[in-house]
Amino acid sequence: MKRTIYLSSTPLDEALTRWNKRLHEDKLVRPLPPETIDVTEALGRITSEAVVAKLSSPFYHAAAMDGYAVRFAETFGASETTPVRLRVGEQAIPVDTGDPIPDRFNAVIMIEDVNIVRSGQSGVRNQEVQGRAKEGGVCGHYEEHVEIIEPATPWQHVRTIGEDIVATELILPENHRIRPVDIGALLAGGYREIMARRRPKVAVIPTGDEIVEPGTELVRGNIIEYNSRVLGGLVTEWGGEPLRLPIVHDDLGELEAAIAAACDSSDVVVVNAGSSAGSEDFTAQAVSELGEIIIHGIGIRPGKPVILGVVRGKPVLGIPGYPVSAYITFDLFARPMIYALQGMKVRQPERIKALLSRQTASPLGQEEFVRMKVGAVGNKMIATPIGSGAGVIMSLVRADGIVRIPSMSEGIGAGSQVDVELLRDKDEIRNTIVCIGSHDNALDVLANSLKKRCPEFSLSSAHVGSMGGLIALKKGEAHMAGTHLLDEETGLYNIPYILKLLPDRKIVLINLVYRQQGLLVRKSNPRKIQGFEDLLREDVVFINRQQGAGTRLLTDKHLRELGIDPSRVKGYEREEYTHMGVASAVLTGIADTGLAILAAANALDLDFIPVARERYDLAIPYDFMELEMIKALLEIIREDREFRNAVVSLGGYDVSDMGKILYES
Amino acid sequence: MKRTIYLSSTPLDEALTRWNKRLHEDKLVRPLPPETIDVTEALGRITSEAVVAKLSSPFYHAAAMDGYAVRFAETFGASETTPVRLRVGEQAIPVDTGDPIPDRFNAVIMIEDVNIVRSGQSGVRNQEVQGRAKEGGVCGHYEEHVEIIEPATPWQHVRTIGEDIVATELILPENHRIRPVDIGALLAGGYREIMARRRPKVAVIPTGDEIVEPGTELVRGNIIEYNSRVLGGLVTEWGGEPLRLPIVHDDLGELEAAIAAACDSSDVVVVNAGSSAGSEDFTAQAVSELGEIIIHGIGIRPGKPVILGVVRGKPVLGIPGYPVSAYITFDLFARPMIYALQGMKVRQPERIKALLSRQTASPLGQEEFVRMKVGAVGNKMIATPIGSGAGVIMSLVRADGIVRIPSMSEGIGAGSQVDVELLRDKDEIRNTIVCIGSHDNALDVLANSLKKRCPEFSLSSAHVGSMGGLIALKKGEAHMAGTHLLDEETGLYNIPYILKLLPDRKIVLINLVYRQQGLLVRKSNPRKIQGFEDLLREDVVFINRQQGAGTRLLTDKHLRELGIDPSRVKGYEREEYTHMGVASAVLTGIADTGLAILAAANALDLDFIPVARERYDLAIPYDFMELEMIKALLEIIREDREFRNAVVSLGGYDVSDMGKILYES
Repeated sequence: MKRTIYLSSTPLDEALTRWNKRLHEDKLVRPLPPETIDVTEALGRITSEAVVAKLSSPFYHAAAMDGYAVRFAETFGASETTPVRLRVGEQAIPVDTGDPIPDRFNAVIMIEDVNIVRSGQSGVRNQEVQGRAKEGGVCGHYEEHVEIIEPATPWQHVRTIGEDIVATELILPENHRIRPVDIGALLAGGYREIMARRRPKVAVIPTGDEIVEPGTELVRGNIIEYNSRVLGGLVTEWGGEPLRLPIVHDDLGELEAAIAAACDSSDVVVVNAGSSAGSEDFTAQAVSELGEIIIHGIGIRPGKPVILGVVRGKPVLGIPGYPVSAYITFDLFARPMIYALQGMKVRQPERIKALLSRQTASPLGQEEFVRMKVGAVGNKMIATPIGSGAGVIMSLVRADGIVRIPSMSEGIGAGSQVDVELLRDKDEIRNTIVCIGSHDNALDVLANSLKKRCPEFSLSSAHVGSMGGLIALKKGEAHMAGTHLLDEETGLYNIPYILKLLPDRKIVLINLVYRQQGLLVRKSNPRKIQGFEDLLREDVVFINRQQGAGTRLLTDKHLRELGIDPSRVKGYEREEYTHMGVASAVLTGIADTGLAILAAANALDLDFIPVARERYDLAIPYDFMELEMIKALLEIIREDREFRNAVVSLGGYDVSDMGKILYES
Repeated sequence: MKRTIYLSSTPLDEALTRWNKRLHEDKLVRPLPPETIDVTEALGRITSEAVVAKLSSPFYHAAAMDGYAVRFAETFGASETTPVRLRVGEQAIPVDTGDPIPDRFNAVIMIEDVNIVRSGQSGVRNQEVQGRAKEGGVCGHYEEHVEIIEPATPWQHVRTIGEDIVATELILPENHRIRPVDIGALLAGGYREIMARRRPKVAVIPTGDEIVEPGTELVRGNIIEYNSRVLGGLVTEWGGEPLRLPIVHDDLGELEAAIAAACDSSDVVVVNAGSSAGSEDFTAQAVSELGEIIIHGIGIRPGKPVILGVVRGKPVLGIPGYPVSAYITFDLFARPMIYALQGMKVRQPERIKALLSRQTASPLGQEEFVRMKVGAVGNKMIATPIGSGAGVIMSLVRADGIVRIPSMSEGIGAGSQVDVELLRDKDEIRNTIVCIGSHDNALDVLANSLKKRCPEFSLSSAHVGSMGGLIALKKGEAHMAGTHLLDEETGLYNIPYILKLLPDRKIVLINLVYRQQGLLVRKSNPRKIQGFEDLLREDVVFINRQQGAGTRLLTDKHLRELGIDPSRVKGYEREEYTHMGVASAVLTGIADTGLAILAAANALDLDFIPVARERYDLAIPYDFMELEMIKALLEIIREDREFRNAVVSLGGYDVSDMGKILYES
């Protein structure tokens, strides 16, 4: 067992500098040698040398109009009163657009501007004679002339040689990514093949005894291997060719053999994972035995245990195993190499300024990469951290951008301006409805229905509880809030809270559903739980919702009514943010019961002890009612049968008031 | 011959409305049926239904750290003074990150926080003992314990089931374009295959007797067929599958057969060209005989003769033949269909506001699409129209964006603000040096050297003559100007003009080259031209440069010195904008001679009659000298041997002062 490997925490800047210096000194990532490719297959490829035209385009003087080719000198003096007559076939040659201009001819007169005169006939302005004399000419059974009433200027209506491209002219410079129009210009300039950079081959070696191929019959302890596919997708997007190798076990010899072979066949080698300093982490040892480790361990979070090494003249990256760590470190270190191998510089991600919606803590001494949801609400861009660990790939799926918190900072306060590196198109963000507040499964169905009906719009939900939602509306951080707050005094839902929290804001309250809340228990209720009174039992562990959630208030109301001290409820302090989180905790034995909606119980096939029926509404500031995306959403809520049926089929929902305006302030 | 087809000029908005209405009513471009695809092949594909997780991830409670799994209840009361000792193998199970937590265990204590105690030994804080007890445990030859000094909290350092993805949770909505991270989430959620929209098949039929396949031995009248490859590239970029069919001759029957067959095998059919109303334009007739024409002729320029039709339930586009017309009309009409067939909306191109550098006229009654060069100079974005016809594909290769001039406008004045739809990334535009002024072939070499050495930077040259360049500097529309203006009074180059035109601006003048100007004549000088005096001959046609070009001034100086009246020089009024344009005109017989640099004569193998040696400098406002891209350019001019040699090899250049600062104001 090997534990002597030291994992440092080199600051990112220093790591990049040292690494790039080494890559540069050893010429490890110079532009790859070129290969010959078909121009018709060249889309997205990079030129490896300047391309200069072999042919002019057009390569002959060509008619730019349908009409007659003439010698302009023979048209001098033509006017309404002194028309000039040219013999067709000798002085005027019929041409269509694109036809070559005969030698010694040097202008074209448009068909509309000539008068065709047949021998013996007197001229009539050529309005009726639609036929063209091309096939006729002097060979017809009578002689033909054209009459013109204006002289031609030299080379009028002629596409002269090289009008588009002059032979020897630069069509594309070196290091140019080929677009569709470039393909046209290359073909026009006489190329069928060009020299392009070979695509960088990036080998990805997945390692670990615990990882298995997708589709394998799973047993506890297995992890489905997917990082290599994510990294491979990134390689493809960056212009490289991913080469995904078979899974390698936690065996030093096997890993060394795989790395050595990959170095011989690829331009960059990536090992994922085993890059840390644990007992089964062999990457560092393998790299140092085969070659050299330049850096091991970087002061970033996530992604600290990165290995940057060189084996047999090839850069080798040891990438950590958690998917977010893998993504971020691969982006930091592999992307620039893959671009450089193509002779390109990495294009900077689009950046926007946004206001941070809540405080974000960060450890001193580590540069932190925080995934963010970004919303465009009114005139403001709002960034909300996605509070998930490095193991949560869904945090990347959901993220709109990343904010870097410098290593010398302990965090950023709510309301601060932050720089967000966008992962999603700015327009997509602008077309996203930001819904903050209480969670309900019907919102997920709604998000999907919106995307289906109006692919240009999205609905993004953040689950911070009903109270949190109304406060987000107050702070101008959301377009709508899902809320189910019961005012115990009046027995009314939501309206008293809106009046209290948003006295100055015009709000429209629209019903989404009535729903069933209840205690969730595992199938067949093994703990025989009957109600809240059972939460006092020694053998019952509860799972709670977060502060500010309407469901949390409902729990507290019931405990209060039963006179139960929350501190005596085991698990009361453990919080989940969604109904599905509670259901999952119950299903998996983290807890024995928790309060959630029937739809969540149904989704995970749990038993359900009904506790209350409640109203779940959407609160929308009046200003946003006229936004196209809000109108589209409301139309779905009010009129889309498919949506309504999908919600009903989740179970426990009453949709009789769905879409009704219940209150306007 | 058929000439009865009427080409209308329907306004673009009306055409789009009528066309979309028809597509909608007849359900011609609804999202395509799904197909099953491998998740590992799904990059860039579009989901055809919501994807909900089949598996939770992780699907078992997993250790999030290397250490020991414990039951947290057994750790109560642990402290520095009252450590708790747990029997390894019974109360504390060694686990590595990712290992499943054994049943009934519910927390992990990190390896760093335990003290391994072997039976009989007294505890030492586990600093030295690096080995792990995993394989040892109770089966070793002595019993082992771990000692802890802090209680565990429930589920600490455990990735609980569903921490990343809860089974039944929405992973991706319908109509979502799959990114690399999405592939990871799909695999983690238990998918090996998913349902995705079939890629739209777009058949492109090239037509015309004059077009030939690239690589064909060319004869006059041939046009290399490349539009279909440009359109095919666009189809690929938009997510479709281009199907390029063989070239069809100008034959109605042949064309009808091709269209009919394509309609059966494809989702959209595109015919290029023959969409106008000329004698050999059969597309309209073919479409109307096979199906129906909805629109023929749209009030746009370029691109007027568009056909929008329906055949056998498939949309059929007749696209004009000039490459720019083809590109613009395909973008307007094919792109939205290709997106809609995938269930997507077209993403709007990025738009910027820019100042128009020169007046742009436009015909009333036609919406004009003007290709623009866009430069970021100082704080301003400057748009300069590329004054080329619809037949010039290089105008699209060079364009940074497109400005639409409404049909009711006769043009836009210089200095007006315009909306530019970008064809190039904004960062690329910001990293482009705008060089306006005199043309020299060495600038093309310089542009290529810059792209080669610093792929992130570009040099864009506009050729408006030396005077035009200095005026562009004055107006803040360029970063540098190429200039070779001889002041006849002082005999000095450039400096007197800078003092006169830019009295308030600090300018740095840097030499690029000394060069030879001379009269270009065809090989072996068939007209026996000796000098400017021959321009008076009846059989000699001259080709001139545009007003404001230094070379034009040089011509005028020589004519003046010889007492020649320019109006007696045939061709004096015909202007070219570059040395290569002059060379091409001489080579192709448009003119017999013209004044240009030796490099242009060499490029096209023309003979050269020396007239003058002159200095060609770059004038750069002092403010721009510190820009990274300018510094990179100057470094190449001063230090890049390869660049210097390439310039010398063009011929006629003296590079002895290359890069020297000749003047600073």
